[in-house]
Amino acid sequence: MSTLSVFMDVPLAHKLEGSLLKTYKQDDYPNKMFLAYRVCMTNEGHPWVSLVVQKTRLQISQDPSLNYEYLPTMGLKSFIQASLALLLGKNSQAIVENRVGGVHTVGDSGAFQLGVQFLRTWHKDARIVYIISSQKELHGLIFQDVGFTVYEYSIWDPKKLCMDPDILLNVVESKQIFPFFDIPCQGLYTSDLEEDTRILQYFVSQGFEFFCSQSLSKNFGIYDEGVGILVVVAVNNQQLLCVLSQLEGLAQALWLNPPNTGARIITSILCNPALLGEWKQSLKEVVENIMLTKEKVKEKLRLLGTPGSWGHITEQSGTHGYLGLNSQQVEYLVRKKHIYIPKNGQINFSCINANNINYITEGISEAVLLTEGSEMCLPKEKKP
Amino acid sequence: MSTLSVFMDVPLAHKLEGSLLKTYKQDDYPNKMFLAYRVCMTNEGHPWVSLVVQKTRLQISQDPSLNYEYLPTMGLKSFIQASLALLLGKNSQAIVENRVGGVHTVGDSGAFQLGVQFLRTWHKDARIVYIISSQKELHGLIFQDVGFTVYEYSIWDPKKLCMDPDILLNVVESKQIFPFFDIPCQGLYTSDLEEDTRILQYFVSQGFEFFCSQSLSKNFGIYDEGVGILVVVAVNNQQLLCVLSQLEGLAQALWLNPPNTGARIITSILCNPALLGEWKQSLKEVVENIMLTKEKVKEKLRLLGTPGSWGHITEQSGTHGYLGLNSQQVEYLVRKKHIYIPKNGQINFSCINANNINYITEGISEAVLLTEGSEMCLPKEKKP
Repeated sequence: MSTLSVFMDVPLAHKLEGSLLKTYKQDDYPNKMFLAYRVCMTNEGHPWVSLVVQKTRLQISQDPSLNYEYLPTMGLKSFIQASLALLLGKNSQAIVENRVGGVHTVGDSGAFQLGVQFLRTWHKDARIVYIISSQKELHGLIFQDVGFTVYEYSIWDPKKLCMDPDILLNVVESKQIFPFFDIPCQGLYTSDLEEDTRILQYFVSQGFEFFCSQSLSKNFGIYDEGVGILVVVAVNNQQLLCVLSQLEGLAQALWLNPPNTGARIITSILCNPALLGEWKQSLKEVVENIMLTKEKVKEKLRLLGTPGSWGHITEQSGTHGYLGLNSQQVEYLVRKKHIYIPKNGQINFSCINANNINYITEGISEAVLLTEGSEMCLPKEKKP
Repeated sequence: MSTLSVFMDVPLAHKLEGSLLKTYKQDDYPNKMFLAYRVCMTNEGHPWVSLVVQKTRLQISQDPSLNYEYLPTMGLKSFIQASLALLLGKNSQAIVENRVGGVHTVGDSGAFQLGVQFLRTWHKDARIVYIISSQKELHGLIFQDVGFTVYEYSIWDPKKLCMDPDILLNVVESKQIFPFFDIPCQGLYTSDLEEDTRILQYFVSQGFEFFCSQSLSKNFGIYDEGVGILVVVAVNNQQLLCVLSQLEGLAQALWLNPPNTGARIITSILCNPALLGEWKQSLKEVVENIMLTKEKVKEKLRLLGTPGSWGHITEQSGTHGYLGLNSQQVEYLVRKKHIYIPKNGQINFSCINANNINYITEGISEAVLLTEGSEMCLPKEKKP
C-alpha cells in the first residue's frame, strides 16, 4: 500500500470565520456568555421559532397528497412568488411590470455565491466590492474567493453613536455601483414588514437594477433548511429572463435542486391569510420583547451610574445593535467578564434575558468605568 | 428612469441539460412516454418513496425535543458517520484506521461541485477528466465550468451487449488517475448494500485515495432535500483532516449550512435496527420488481418475434440499463412512437409498468424490424 498521499501538499486550513464562537466554546468559565449569535434567541436562550412554523410543519408531514420529488433548479415557484411579494409589496411597480424574478437558493450564502458567480462572468469590468463591515466575514469572503477586491465600510458612526447611511447612498445613486442588498430578517427590525424593506422600494422607484439576497430563515425560525432567494430586479422583462436563464445554468452546477421543506412551510404560511396573521403577530411579539430588553439595558446602565448617554441602544431597530463601546471596552468584557462580543461592539440583544441582564450590564458599566480611553466613545457626556 | 440595462450584454442561456425532458413536455401526443427519469418510479408512475421514510418524517415532525438550528458547515455528524458506515461497511479498513471522512453536501451535484473546487485548487497539474458518458451531461459540466477538459467513455460495449469495465480499471490502477466515484443509489442495483459498493471496498483494500459522491436521495426516496456526501478516503488521518479543513472553507462559501430534514430522516432510519430492516426490505421489493419488469420486457420482445437476443436486458442490474438499440432505432422510438429514450439507449426500467409495457415492447420490436442498419447492434443473431 502506497503511503505517499495525493494530498501531501494540502495544509490544514486556518479557520477565519466563527473564531469568536470557537474561543467562547473553549472557555471553561461557568458563567461565560455569547452575545453574537446570528439568530434571534428566546428568553430561555434557544433559537426562536415562530409557533405557526411548528404547526405548519406537522400539517405538511401528515398530508398524503404531497410528493417529495426534486424541485426544479430555479426552485419552488410559489415560494419565490410569495417571497417576492413579501419583499417588495404585492403592488410593487417592478412586480406589476414583470421585471422582478428570483432563484430559490440554499440560504443567503447560496444567494451570494450565485450572485457573485454571475457578476464574475457578466460584469467583468467591476472588480471592487464595498461591503458593510458586519457582513464582511460572512459574505465578503465569497467575493474575495473569486477575485474581487473587497473594501468594508460602516454606516455606524462611533462618534455620533448613530447610523449614517448618507455617504453610501450618494455613491450608489451616481449609478457607478451595482447594489447587492442583503435582507436577512425582514420583519425582525420593526415588525412592520413594509417598513423593513423601504430601501428596496426606494431603489425600485428610482429605476435601479439590483440583486438582493432574501433570507427567510431568521424571520420564520427555520434555520436548518436553506430558505434563500437571489432576487433580480431588471429594467424590463426581457433582460430579466436573460439574467435568470444564466443564473439557472450556474445553479445547476452548484446544487442542481434547492431543498424543499423550509420553502414549503413558508409558502403555506404566506399564502394562507390566517397563518400569515399568526406569523405577523409572532414577529410583533419578538420585536416588542427585544425593545423591552433594550429599555431594561439602558435603564440598568443608568441606575449603575455608568458614564455616557445610552439612548442609542433604544434608537436602533432589530435584534442586532451597537453598544457603542470602544475596542478596549469590548476587550475588557471578553477577557475579564467572559462576555463574548464582536470587536465592533455590535451585539444580538435577544441574547440578553432575565437570567443574564444584571451580569451583562454590570460588566458593561465596569468596562466603561475602568478602561482607559473610555471617553472616546462618550462625547455627549464628557465632563469639563 | 434609465432604460439602459446593466445586464444589456447578458444573452438568454441555451439550455443544455434536460432537453429530452423538455421535448417530451412539449409533445402533445396523448400516449407519450418518458423512460429517462433519474429516479426509481412506482408501478403507478410516481417517484418511489420508501414507506419507512414517510413514517419517520411524521415521527420527527411530532418530536418537541428537536431543534431547527443551523447545521455546522460540515453537516450533520451522525448522518455522515452512519452514511460512511453504510457505504464502506462498518468494519472497513479505512474507517477503522480513521482515514475516511465526509462533508454533508446539497445533493450529489453539491458533492461534485465541492470536490471539483478542491481539485482545481489543490490538484493543479491535473486538468483532464474522464467521465462515464451517462454522467457527462449532469456532472461533466461542473468540471468543464472550472476549466477541466472532459472526455467521456462508456463501459457499455454495444457490440457485445455487455459491460466491460476492464480498460478503465487498468488505467486507474496505474495510479495516474485520481478516482472520483459516484454512488447515486446504493441498494437499488442488487438490493445487497455491500455488493453495490464492492468497487469502493476494492479500491480501499488497494490503498487508493479517492473522492466519492454518495447520494441518499434515490435509495430512500427523499428527492427534494439534497442528501449528499462528499466522501474522502486518504492514506492517513492527518492528511484526511487537512483535506476536510480545506473542504470546509469551500463549503462555507458555497452554502454555509447544508439542509437538515432529509439527513435527519435518514440518520433516524440507519441508526435504528427495526427501521433499517424495513428500509432494506423496501429496497428488496423495488429491485425484485424491476427484475420482474425486465423479464417481462424480454419475454414480450421474444413473443413479438423481435430479431436479436435480449438477454442483456436481464443481465444488467439496477433501475437503469441499456436496451441495446442503435441511434436510428432510438430515433424511431422518439419520433414515431413518442417514447422518449436517451440517444445511448439507456433507459430507466422502473418507468415501464403494466399500463405501458405492451406499447413500449411493440414499439421496440417495430423499431428493430423497420429501421435500416438494425443489424448493427444484433451481431449474435445476424442472418447469413
